[in-house]
Formats: sequence, structure tokens, C-alpha cells
Amino acid sequence: MRVRLLEATENPEELICQSARNDYMSDWVGDTPLDTAMASVDGDTTDEKLSNLIAQLLTRGHYGPFEHPSATFAIEGVSRSCMAQLTRHRHASFDVQSMRYVAFDDVDPAAVAEGELVVTPPSATDPDWVGRNQDAGDIDEETMAEREAVFQASVRRAVEDYQELLGLGMPPEDARFVLPIGTEVNVVITLNPRSLMHVADMRAAADAQWEIRELTEQLLDAAAQWCPHTFEYYDAEMKHRKNRLAP
Amino acid sequence: MRVRLLEATENPEELICQSARNDYMSDWVGDTPLDTAMASVDGDTTDEKLSNLIAQLLTRGHYGPFEHPSATFAIEGVSRSCMAQLTRHRHASFDVQSMRYVAFDDVDPAAVAEGELVVTPPSATDPDWVGRNQDAGDIDEETMAEREAVFQASVRRAVEDYQELLGLGMPPEDARFVLPIGTEVNVVITLNPRSLMHVADMRAAADAQWEIRELTEQLLDAAAQWCPHTFEYYDAEMKHRKNRLAP
Amino acid sequence: MRVRLLEATENPEELICQSARNDYMSDWVGDTPLDTAMASVDGDTTDEKLSNLIAQLLTRGHYGPFEHPSATFAIEGVSRSCMAQLTRHRHASFDVQSMRYVAFDDVDPAAVAEGELVVTPPSATDPDWVGRNQDAGDIDEETMAEREAVFQASVRRAVEDYQELLGLGMPPEDARFVLPIGTEVNVVITLNPRSLMHVADMRAAADAQWEIRELTEQLLDAAAQWCPHTFEYYDAEMKHRKNRLAP
Amino acid sequence: MRVRLLEATENPEELICQSARNDYMSDWVGDTPLDTAMASVDGDTTDEKLSNLIAQLLTRGHYGPFEHPSATFAIEGVSRSCMAQLTRHRHASFDVQSMRYVAFDDVDPAAVAEGELVVTPPSATDPDWVGRNQDAGDIDEETMAEREAVFQASVRRAVEDYQELLGLGMPPEDARFVLPIGTEVNVVITLNPRSLMHVADMRAAADAQWEIRELTEQLLDAAAQWCPHTFEYYDAEMKHRKNRLAP
Repeated sequence: MRVRLLEATENPEELICQSARNDYMSDWVGDTPLDTAMASVDGDTTDEKLSNLIAQLLTRGHYGPFEHPSATFAIEGVSRSCMAQLTRHRHASFDVQSMRYVAFDDVDPAAVAEGELVVTPPSATDPDWVGRNQDAGDIDEETMAEREAVFQASVRRAVEDYQELLGLGMPPEDARFVLPIGTEVNVVITLNPRSLMHVADMRAAADAQWEIRELTEQLLDAAAQWCPHTFEYYDAEMKHRKNRLAP
Repeated sequence: MRVRLLEATENPEELICQSARNDYMSDWVGDTPLDTAMASVDGDTTDEKLSNLIAQLLTRGHYGPFEHPSATFAIEGVSRSCMAQLTRHRHASFDVQSMRYVAFDDVDPAAVAEGELVVTPPSATDPDWVGRNQDAGDIDEETMAEREAVFQASVRRAVEDYQELLGLGMPPEDARFVLPIGTEVNVVITLNPRSLMHVADMRAAADAQWEIRELTEQLLDAAAQWCPHTFEYYDAEMKHRKNRLAP
Repeated sequence: MRVRLLEATENPEELICQSARNDYMSDWVGDTPLDTAMASVDGDTTDEKLSNLIAQLLTRGHYGPFEHPSATFAIEGVSRSCMAQLTRHRHASFDVQSMRYVAFDDVDPAAVAEGELVVTPPSATDPDWVGRNQDAGDIDEETMAEREAVFQASVRRAVEDYQELLGLGMPPEDARFVLPIGTEVNVVITLNPRSLMHVADMRAAADAQWEIRELTEQLLDAAAQWCPHTFEYYDAEMKHRKNRLAP
Repeated sequence: MRVRLLEATENPEELICQSARNDYMSDWVGDTPLDTAMASVDGDTTDEKLSNLIAQLLTRGHYGPFEHPSATFAIEGVSRSCMAQLTRHRHASFDVQSMRYVAFDDVDPAAVAEGELVVTPPSATDPDWVGRNQDAGDIDEETMAEREAVFQASVRRAVEDYQELLGLGMPPEDARFVLPIGTEVNVVITLNPRSLMHVADMRAAADAQWEIRELTEQLLDAAAQWCPHTFEYYDAEMKHRKNRLAP
């Protein structure tokens, strides 16, 4: 799984504060320099004022201003099941690699057994891994080796079958029915800070599956560069609290 | 694939018209009998007036009133790829059978080869089927039989591998990575007439995949019972037009 | 302000539980009687099981099932500013009485001074009322009487001016520019239990304005009849907590 | 009314095409230079290819990629009724100047009669103006002068009453109930190209009110600088068509 920032609104936290100040000023923010608009906010420097106002807004639950900047990320190689969880979020925009138009006819099945094209879950290779609703306790090495072998053979054969069906003239949109749910897919996603914080409420939570948790942490890391004050506050004061009603 | 109506707002088209009339009346619809509210609408009977007003609203593009009634459908056994297409629609509500909590450990792999648990696309059994981006022209019987055999053997083995991994203590949420993308999933969906018409704009279209097209037609059939005037007009005047900007 | 329930999904809490159970059952809820689907839920009676499952879902933050039922309310006579706050909620559907098509040319301005057509805020008549950002402390009777007189004369004259402009041939959509922001408007709103709980998170809060707070309480009262277990839990466990990220 | 662009995603149309190409490429767009990703698109230059792909996407109704870039505009001085129409759009983000926190206690009522603080509709000053549902035909000068006088006197007095009520200790959130619906409000709005095209479908239409039509044209003009290919195509091929189902 890789995540890369493609584009992001510049000066995002200035934009958040400018928008928030619009609500409380009689003057027009379109005509008001930022430091004039922020005059009534505590802080010695503009950066301190940005930090203070952002903390106030998040503390008070005034989230609207956090919808104005947006960032677009390219995500490589998450599983189809992770993609299905991610695209359930309404307040994000997605482009998803289409298996109707993209056929994996040139992938070497042997490479698939080594981890190409299909995401290998940690529990297929890591004996210490404990996943949700897992029956067994600690796994002896032999069982672990067997798991790995079964998993790798299975995904390899599935890709062989898929390529064979393509060769027999089956349209890619139907041949994909035999590909594993772990098959990788590339996604482009656009979020604003508010929607990312909501996604993180749900997907960085301990009971989220490991893959989307990892993806969410990578998005949060990138966002912390982009909106440092916002995600510093989120990390310290809001993360891992029980998710509320956000649809 | 089966679709069953679980619950639906009663008197949906009265509600649509009552809501629309609210916009144009000085009196309160909460206190105004329907036939008084519809007095200015052409038609000899209430049903004729409902039909006329609904046609006017759809012709004029006044769609808001069509958001008030809602219907909830239980959908059985669509493929994971169909589910992924369906859940991309923001203006619908979903509950999706979770493969983190539901393990298919008791399904007989032999039955899977016969069509259980995994959706068999038409192109796996029907020689006349032509799907999108399909390479080959007409399929000779031998190729057809080979397709069917490869498909059935593949989905059977995948389920065997999945059950073996469960037996080796892998959590269901990870073992599912080897299950085929064609694996069936049950979904509960709630839509209002407006969002269903938008879904149909996109998914009843000729270039939509056969499975979600079939699902959409079943939803439209059920909706035609529920909101006859609305979906009669949709079918005659709006269906199969190029989809517009609906997000 | 009056609120009346126009239509609401029947058996809403059965539908919520049926939808939730879909996520955790291998059998299809479309074919499964409710009590079979609820077999694994604690409780001696179906009603107890509904109550327990609903509490579990809300406690765990599994809110999706609460989107399936919906209720449509007719609201009479809220101010334009209350309507502007209400219609900011994305996950609700609205029809709003249009002042482009509805002209108040036959309202008696004298009646407007007595409270017709324009909402009179409590601070215009109640000396003990303390509103947000209010400068003065307790109000002597004389000031109170003056407030009431100024308010009533103002709204009366505004309506007279409006009717005069209509008489001078000004289109209603422009003449309304002189009508007071307190002018009443009728709204039809459809919400599901989840979106109503989110609206209540924001609008039943102490810092919301008195009018939308009162409206929200009336909606919650009606909803408590419709979904008793859901709104009993909301009232006891969730109401007045700080609103989170819901867009 | 003034509109100013505060921030906008850079290279928006590259981002649109990059996101669209993600759907049809087996390689990852995060690792693929734009011109490689666009290799299969007709055109001699990158700009030509961008234009061609954007036209193809809009023609085919593949709108998702147009959700990734976003632009934030500061809007000055639209009427409360225009704001109420604008904020009905779900797929945009808003910050609205709050009359609970911003009191117009220092505005000179005489200036209000001259057009300050309250939007003067064209039909109050322009004899040739014909508005929706307008009774009268052409307006003689005397009637026109009367209209103007009535309008100006009315808005002046309303602001005087408002300031008097503030002086009598009424909280701004209640005193505003006497301010005219034409009172100006500043709004910050964020849209993506897709949501702006939908807003324009509805608000640039001939039957939209003059004020939001003017606002929409200003937003479209700014957007044409920002996404030239997209809005050139929109203007030529899509604008003024009947709006479809967009919620």
C-alpha cells in the first residue's frame, strides 16, 4: 500500500480561519488581509493565532470551516475489501481503478504467490498476529507455514484461472468474478480536513480492520504536514474517541 | 439475486404532492386536507390530479418533493463487485452483510461449483452472451464448456482454500481475501424515489454491467407498484436518457 | 410554530434491527422472520430484544441501520432565520414555502402587529428573557413595553410597505426584500432517526437559538412516539453531549 | 454583490485527468508522469489532450473526476433570500456571516436608504424590469418613483427599528427579526467543478431569480479562468439544458 499527495489547497489553515472569521465579522473577508481578520484572536504571531483559532473551533464543534480546503491522494494497491469500506464515506470523492477496463492478463501468477497483485494479510505470514473473531490462540510454526502455503497457492491459482477465462474470451468484467477479494486496486480520493477527521474517527479506531487502519494512518500523516495545527489537535484531543453520528 | 420490499412510506405520491403544494400555498399543509391542497391541480379525480402534478414536477425538474417517501429493500446474493458499484451512491442508505462477522465455514464447496455462494456471470454459461470489452466473437461449444469448467473449478477451490484457512485459525476478515470477487453478499438499501431515479439513470443504462442493471430493473419494478405515477412517467419520459450531473 | 407528522415508515425499530441483523447473519433477512433474526439478541420479548439491540448499536456507534426508516413532518410558521439554520442540514429533505409564488397580499397588517405572519421573539415581550450576546441585564417594565411597541410597529409597517410594493406591480420575489427576517414560512422536512439525532446534537444544544431549539424538541417528542427505544436511549445517553464531526 | 476567489486547487484539470486515467490504467497514477498517463489520449500537446479527455468525460457522463479539485470563493453582500437558495445545495461547503454575532448597530440608516446593507432589487429602480409573477405590464415613471421611495423608506425604517431594539437591550439574534429579508450577508463557499456545474444547471437557468443567477454567472466566470476546458465545454454543450435529478 502506498499513498501519495497529488494536489492540496495551498494555505489551508489560513483558509479555514479566514472562512471562520467571515461568520463573526461585519467586514468582508474578500477585502480584509488575514492579520486584520485575525486581530481579535489571541496569539503573538499569525501562526500562533491560527493555532489558537483552530483549537477553539474544534473545541466548540464549529466544523464547517474545515470543509473548505481539500487534498487529493493517490492510493496504490489496497484490497477490494478495503476499497469497499473506504468508498462507503459520502463526504469524500473517489476514482477507482475499473476491472471492467483494466485486465491483469500480463501478471505472472508466480509473482502473485510472492505478493504481487493480491494483498497478503498479516495473519497469513505473522504467527503473532491476532485478528478480529479469530478462533485459534497462538499458532505453531507448522500451522503458520501451512497458512502461508494455502494462501499463496490459492491466490496464484485464482489469477491463473482468471487469465485462462480471459483467454477463452470472457469479458474482463465477468472474468474478475474469480479474482480474490484481496486483489489490489488503485484509488484516487479527495477529502477535506473535516471529512478526513470523520474517516479517522471510524477507520483509525481499534475495531477497524488492520488494512484501512494503516491506510488511515498514512492519510493522517500526510494531512499533518498539510494542516499541522488541525491534525495536531485532532491527534491530541479527538482521535480514538467513540465515533458519533456522522453519516 | 432476489429483491424484497421490507418497508415503504405509505401514500407516497400523496406525500410527494402534499410536500410540493406546501411550496405554493399560503395555507399550512399540516392543516389542509389533500383534496383542498390539490384544488388548483387539473384532473377530475384525486388520482388524476396526483398523476398530473407528478408529471408537472418531473417535467419542470422540481425534484425535491420526490425525496420525502422512502422504501427499504432487502437484496439477496449480489456479487461483491455489484455491491461496490451500488454503495458508491451517496443518496441511499445501506447495511451490508459483513464478512468480518459472517464466515462461510459450513458451505459445501461442491455446491459452490453448482452456483451457490458465488455469482456465476452469464458469459460463463451462455455462448450468445456478449459482454463489455469482450475480445472473442461467437464462442464455440467446446470453448463455452471449458469456460464453465474453469469458472466452476476456480470458485470451488477458492472456497475450499478459504475454509482451510479458517480451520488454520485465520480470522474471517483475512481469510476472505482468497474468496472470489463474485462471492454473494446480502444488502439492505433504502432509497427515495428521487435517488432511485438517479441510480436508474446510471445503472439501468446500457453501459452498466449486467448484474447491477438487473438489480436496478427489479428495484424499478417494485417501485412502480409503490409510486405508479412517478415511475410510469420515469419509464416513458426519462429512462435511458444520458445521465447528467447528479453526484 | 406547529409540527405535524405527515407520514412515517411503519415498524421503524423492527426495520432498524432487521437491517442491522443483515450485517451479522448468513441467512437473508428478506426470508427470515424477525424473531428468528433476533434469536441471538438478549431479551424475553421481541420488544425487549428490539430495545437491547438498539441500545447496543447506539453504544457501539453502529449508526447505519438508523438511516432506513424515515418520517416526514409539516412545520408551520417558523421564521426565515430558523428555516435558514434548518436547511443547512444535508441529510434531510426539504420543501419550503416559496415567497416567489406565495404573496401575503391579503394579510391584515394590524393582525401582523398582534403576532400574525411574523414570529415575535420572546425577548420582545418577556422581561425575564436572556438571549445570546444580550447587552442589558434585567429589563424594567418601561423598556420592555417600548421593545414590544417598536417590534410590533416595525413588522406592521414592513408588511404594509410590502403590500404597497405589490400594488405598485413589483414581483413578489422582489417585494419580499422588505419583509422582516422574522416572517413565517412553512416547511416540510423528512429525516431518518440518525439524521434527526445529528440535528438534535446541534440544534437542541444550549447554544442554539431558542426557536430552532423549540422546533427540535417538538421533532424529538414526535420521534419518541415513532421510535421509542431509539429516542429514549438518545435522551438518556446521548443528548446534550458535544456535537462531533457530523457534516 | 462581489465574488473573490480565495483559494483554488492548482493544476485542476491535470488533477481531473490524472484521476480519470487512474480508472483505466494498470499502472499507479501516483508514480506515473502526467504525459505518460495521457499517452493514449488524442492530441498533439498536453493541453490538447487535457481538453479532449475533459470533453470525452463530460460527454460520457463520467463526472466523478470533476469532484477532485475545489475552489473557495468569498461572496459579499447577497440578500438573505439569495443565501437561503444557495445554501440548499448539499455538495458545497459554506460559512455564513452570523447575525447572532454580527450586529449592524453602527450602520447609518440614511445610507441604507441609498443602498447600503440591504440589496435593492432591480424592479425597485428599473421601469423596464419584468420579474417572475409580476402583475403589472410597463410601469409609468410616477409608479416607478413611488416604488423606489416606498422601498427605500421601508428598509431605512427597518434598520432604525433594529438599532432601537438593540439599544433597548434586545439580543442581536432576536432584533434581526425586524431586519429586511433583503439584508446583505457575506458567505464563503467551496465547490468542486462538478458541484458548480450542478448549481449552474439550476441557478443559471432562466427561471432562477435574478440575484442568484448573477451570482452564478460570476462564479462561472471565475471558474472559467480556473478550469478553462471544463467550463468552456459546459458553456457550449451543457448550460441551460433542463436540470436533471441532481439532489
